[in-house]
Amino acid sequence: MQALRRTLGFASQATARKPRVVVLGSGWGGNKVARYLDKTKFDVRVVSPANHFLFTPLLPSTAVGTLEFRAVQEPVRTIKGLGKYHQAKAQKLDVENRIVNCRDIFSGDTFDINYDFLVISAGCKTNTFAVPGVTQEQQSTVFFLKHLYHARRIRDRILECFERAASPVASEEERRDLLHFVVVGGGATSCEFATELSEFLEKDVRKWYPDLADLVSLSIVEAGPNLLAGFDETCWQYYTKHLREHNVDVRTGCAITAVEPAEDGRVSSATMANRSTMRFGCMVWSAGLAPIKFVEGSSLEKGKGGRIVVDEYLRAADRVFALGDCAASREDPLPPTANAAEQQGAYLAKCFNNTYYKAGADGVMPAKPDPVVPSAMPFAWLEPLDNLWDARSEFRYVERGKMASMGMWGGVADLTKSEITPVGGTLTGVTAFASWRGAYLSKQVSVQNMILIPMFWFKSWLFGRDISRF
Amino acid sequence: MQALRRTLGFASQATARKPRVVVLGSGWGGNKVARYLDKTKFDVRVVSPANHFLFTPLLPSTAVGTLEFRAVQEPVRTIKGLGKYHQAKAQKLDVENRIVNCRDIFSGDTFDINYDFLVISAGCKTNTFAVPGVTQEQQSTVFFLKHLYHARRIRDRILECFERAASPVASEEERRDLLHFVVVGGGATSCEFATELSEFLEKDVRKWYPDLADLVSLSIVEAGPNLLAGFDETCWQYYTKHLREHNVDVRTGCAITAVEPAEDGRVSSATMANRSTMRFGCMVWSAGLAPIKFVEGSSLEKGKGGRIVVDEYLRAADRVFALGDCAASREDPLPPTANAAEQQGAYLAKCFNNTYYKAGADGVMPAKPDPVVPSAMPFAWLEPLDNLWDARSEFRYVERGKMASMGMWGGVADLTKSEITPVGGTLTGVTAFASWRGAYLSKQVSVQNMILIPMFWFKSWLFGRDISRF
Repeated sequence: MQALRRTLGFASQATARKPRVVVLGSGWGGNKVARYLDKTKFDVRVVSPANHFLFTPLLPSTAVGTLEFRAVQEPVRTIKGLGKYHQAKAQKLDVENRIVNCRDIFSGDTFDINYDFLVISAGCKTNTFAVPGVTQEQQSTVFFLKHLYHARRIRDRILECFERAASPVASEEERRDLLHFVVVGGGATSCEFATELSEFLEKDVRKWYPDLADLVSLSIVEAGPNLLAGFDETCWQYYTKHLREHNVDVRTGCAITAVEPAEDGRVSSATMANRSTMRFGCMVWSAGLAPIKFVEGSSLEKGKGGRIVVDEYLRAADRVFALGDCAASREDPLPPTANAAEQQGAYLAKCFNNTYYKAGADGVMPAKPDPVVPSAMPFAWLEPLDNLWDARSEFRYVERGKMASMGMWGGVADLTKSEITPVGGTLTGVTAFASWRGAYLSKQVSVQNMILIPMFWFKSWLFGRDISRF
Repeated sequence: MQALRRTLGFASQATARKPRVVVLGSGWGGNKVARYLDKTKFDVRVVSPANHFLFTPLLPSTAVGTLEFRAVQEPVRTIKGLGKYHQAKAQKLDVENRIVNCRDIFSGDTFDINYDFLVISAGCKTNTFAVPGVTQEQQSTVFFLKHLYHARRIRDRILECFERAASPVASEEERRDLLHFVVVGGGATSCEFATELSEFLEKDVRKWYPDLADLVSLSIVEAGPNLLAGFDETCWQYYTKHLREHNVDVRTGCAITAVEPAEDGRVSSATMANRSTMRFGCMVWSAGLAPIKFVEGSSLEKGKGGRIVVDEYLRAADRVFALGDCAASREDPLPPTANAAEQQGAYLAKCFNNTYYKAGADGVMPAKPDPVVPSAMPFAWLEPLDNLWDARSEFRYVERGKMASMGMWGGVADLTKSEITPVGGTLTGVTAFASWRGAYLSKQVSVQNMILIPMFWFKSWLFGRDISRF
């Protein structure tokens, strides 16, 4: 792989006069900044290994086929007025010369891209907590759940486990091992995936693999004292009860200390802190976050969890801003949630459009941006209500509440701390279900997904999920 | 990989009294037999490496995202009353002891399965005509188009070519090479794929990769004198004209003699019989059919093209029947089409349900089955009209005519030889388009695909195709 080096400094004469904003990442933060930036004022360029924005709350349901993969993402290139997009990973940052060195994910070629403003919204990777075997078993029996290709591999593996178990030469013990599914982590993603999987096992497997249905088991393992940490107790109590009612083996206060292939290599075995072991055919590891190489390797100051330290204006260095999972203020770090990243992205875009553009490519940066109102409202059509909040120069996070889906007709919503709902308290069951689906549907970027998603929901509900593997 | 051996002879007591029909393959022939067999009379078991039936005429349009992959297949397990399904490949046939030895595609374990009746509908594989490099370059730049995973890889590769070409370090020459797409073969599948791809290049690429649109080129290469061999001249003339009007470089009478990686390995190079060469980023090879290992290795008599020789009752040996692409009568071999395989499958199912069941597991097989009417009509709701044909003991093929789609609003239909349409002649343009879509929609097995497919057609037409890669 030869490593060509070329600078994009003079790439596009047409946009040369506009200061260039380079956005690293196409997740909740990066996608928001890139879409909200005023393209008449900025030459916006996105660098991201994923050429799409992933609507993460709907990811768990794609892993069992409730939703189709393509319905929960938006191509980066659909961003109107986008200067350029590079499917590459940022490698090195040179703050002094305003250069990011990137690596093309296909060819491996490296290239430099100059910026006038840099927005680091590169997110995090899944944290294995250095548990032995997790990385090694990955792709065979252990899977993360962060990207679309993860969800697709999980779905492939689940169906593979069933076809393997259906083989005439498989012993009953092997069948039970193959059909034991383990979810690691007790966060919303893990819980939602566990629910989706248990629905798939109850409704579809009973129908298509009747001989195997009774051999199936599902466990969810959380090191902490309870599921849905951060949610109100009513919520996690309710959710735990729901999972147990659906024969999910919920193990809290239980840490996994090692994963290794079982002797014949068809299944794997996990060892728990209490030394007990369990064999499984498929493990979904969604347990925590760790900093990515680029952030780790950068000269920027890092704080707790390896997150880039930013000030109240999300500044990490001169003309360098950071937000989302990969950044946090030292005083009160926000949890790494879509809500936080999205609000930070919107805030930053407003600051750029109102203030920073004045500094241009070479001007002096103002001490702080002009005041802007927070993007409190979760939906575009409610944005006028943002003006109920007072404008501030520093970023202000508005708590919108937490939600976790619970399959068809179920869910929990914790609005106890919500600043945007007229009433607080918690919702469970069908009301939470309705608000969850309503909310995430309203948040879709494109019309086609607003049409497709309910269509797939309806299809899965009416016809069940598809079991073909290819 | 240990090779366990076990016989399924006594597998299910419950069905022991019913004679067992083992169906090899889940394509047009096998799917039809398995669905039409009377499960109250037979213990039906399907062995196929693909756990779904693929609606092949719609495959080309999934490769560019006009249709979603899952909308064009039906899981084998949705066959009502199916005894068992094994995701395995048949390896050896023991006609004397009525045993098929199979290999589990996941574990590689082998097992024997006993049969009272065997239906070999295992199809063919793509023929590389021993052109050097085709097999080696497969999966990197050369792709077959026979299975769903092929279509998915083609789609991945096409989008990869665009992202590679969009890389700032790619030279203009490399971009042109990456964006040169080659279709090998002039059959309906190749032509339909070429049309779909050219639509994708014209409509979607112009929108999402404006800088690259002018560097794109598409060639279709056919060794024979014209495209759509077997179609009436009006049809292939019309189709060729259409492709050329859409800037497709149509090369007939042109054979590819070698494929090799270009020096930097990012694109490949094809050499033609006339010694000229062309570089390309993606080649779809859909040129011909070759027998699969199991058929080649079996002791059954083979005829032209390595197809199993069958008599007028589709018998290949005692209690062994063969149909579809992998079989043919010596006198008048039928072309390897979905139409032929489907009619043979239906014919065989009728013979089993009316006659062969009497022979049971140990009885004497009749000299010939009782007369049955051919399955002339392409749609279930027209089946009553089959009775317009006289019943015969031997299989009778009814020509239904040929169709090839030509993207949105286009198509060709050759009804000159059709025995089922009130009028003969040929259709082109929107009438052919309407009949093509109407016909294939009516042929869907499941209600959900009847709903999904037009939905996706509408979506692609309205919003275009998605360009995310994952």
